[in-house]
Amino acid sequence: MTHPALRLDDTVHQRVRLGILAVLREASRADFAYLRDALELTDGNLSRHIAVLEEAGLVEVEKAFEGKRTRTWLQATKAGRAALDAEMKAMRELMERIGGVPRLAGET
Amino acid sequence: MTHPALRLDDTVHQRVRLGILAVLREASRADFAYLRDALELTDGNLSRHIAVLEEAGLVEVEKAFEGKRTRTWLQATKAGRAALDAEMKAMRELMERIGGVPRLAGET
Repeated sequence: MTHPALRLDDTVHQRVRLGILAVLREASRADFAYLRDALELTDGNLSRHIAVLEEAGLVEVEKAFEGKRTRTWLQATKAGRAALDAEMKAMRELMERIGGVPRLAGET
Repeated sequence: MTHPALRLDDTVHQRVRLGILAVLREASRADFAYLRDALELTDGNLSRHIAVLEEAGLVEVEKAFEGKRTRTWLQATKAGRAALDAEMKAMRELMERIGGVPRLAGET
């Protein structure tokens, strides 16, 4: 059996992009400013990573006019949710392999 | 509370380097060829990522003479083991946050 690390895909595994997909899983959709603040990113850095995810078909971007301003909404596509699931499975397997999933603080 | 994705450190989180640290956790020490084959890397790619980990003090590299050949052994340092633990904790928290740790195939 191949090592689970081989099943990690950089498109999803990369730290910032994993954060984006995780927030979109929690929130189902989020606007640009929320993602930027939640993940402590600059506008440029977030834009760059969104472009990678959009190019790969993992997120959808929608611009909505609100009065004079434009608001950018993001949500994960079906492929994006599947890619996040695959990443979580590979990480879980990796954890199991190196001696178990660590407990969280406060767990008994 | 900050998002667990913010606690992921690229030095350890990057796919290949995470694979290296995971194999060294399983094996306690491994030689260059074993790592290269287990993670399906080229010599150049493995060397580059080992250099990053060594520079960060996370792995130790030792060259041993075996007859006419040199064999390169690697093991994680104490800091390397701690960094892998921190990565696993952050990933576990991220998983919990987005709806639980996925079960492995065959688990009930």
